[in-house]
Amino acid sequence: MVTKLPLDVAAAGEACCAPLVTETITAEQAEVLAARIKALADPARLRLVSLLAASPGGEACQCDLTEPLGLSQPTVSHHLKVLYQAGLVAKEKRSTWVYYSVVPEALATIADVLTPGR
Amino acid sequence: MVTKLPLDVAAAGEACCAPLVTETITAEQAEVLAARIKALADPARLRLVSLLAASPGGEACQCDLTEPLGLSQPTVSHHLKVLYQAGLVAKEKRSTWVYYSVVPEALATIADVLTPGR
Repeated sequence: MVTKLPLDVAAAGEACCAPLVTETITAEQAEVLAARIKALADPARLRLVSLLAASPGGEACQCDLTEPLGLSQPTVSHHLKVLYQAGLVAKEKRSTWVYYSVVPEALATIADVLTPGR
Repeated sequence: MVTKLPLDVAAAGEACCAPLVTETITAEQAEVLAARIKALADPARLRLVSLLAASPGGEACQCDLTEPLGLSQPTVSHHLKVLYQAGLVAKEKRSTWVYYSVVPEALATIADVLTPGR
């Protein structure tokens, strides 16, 4: 069963805000967008997203992500949790393992607000 | 005179890294990219970028940015400095005023690494 994404990013394909560069965003919109961008603004999390996206089928077992990053298992768990809570990755439990995958639409949401006319 | 951007982002139009979602990025690339994204990951800085981009001519005097944000002048100065150091905004001094403008190519650089096949 694919675990549901947190409510506020359930519709990850929908931009939270109008493009940043064509309209003035409100303080509330800025808070939502900043939280989402902040989840990505970490070298380990960027590498996790990159590793997941480049894995066969666009997903990887948490157990296979620790070694390539050179970080401890609890640290990798923490970063995956932050990405998951921001709606940037999805997770699925299969027997004893948890598999993670990127949510491309969530990344596109961030990209869209930075690009005028998209 | 337009002040030069910091060296590491002088060529803001060039992506620092291959698209995140099609290739695995290195630890070094992740550091550079995370620093750039982190500069944006703040509600006040997102609003500043949005205000600048929506201003006539895509630029605004620092003196006109304080009131719409509802923050103190030193706080606005700090955020503009962070954006400038990340190469996300440019600045130009005219008589006693400093004018800031968005560097669209720098925003596009971030958007590009989040979007496969661009």
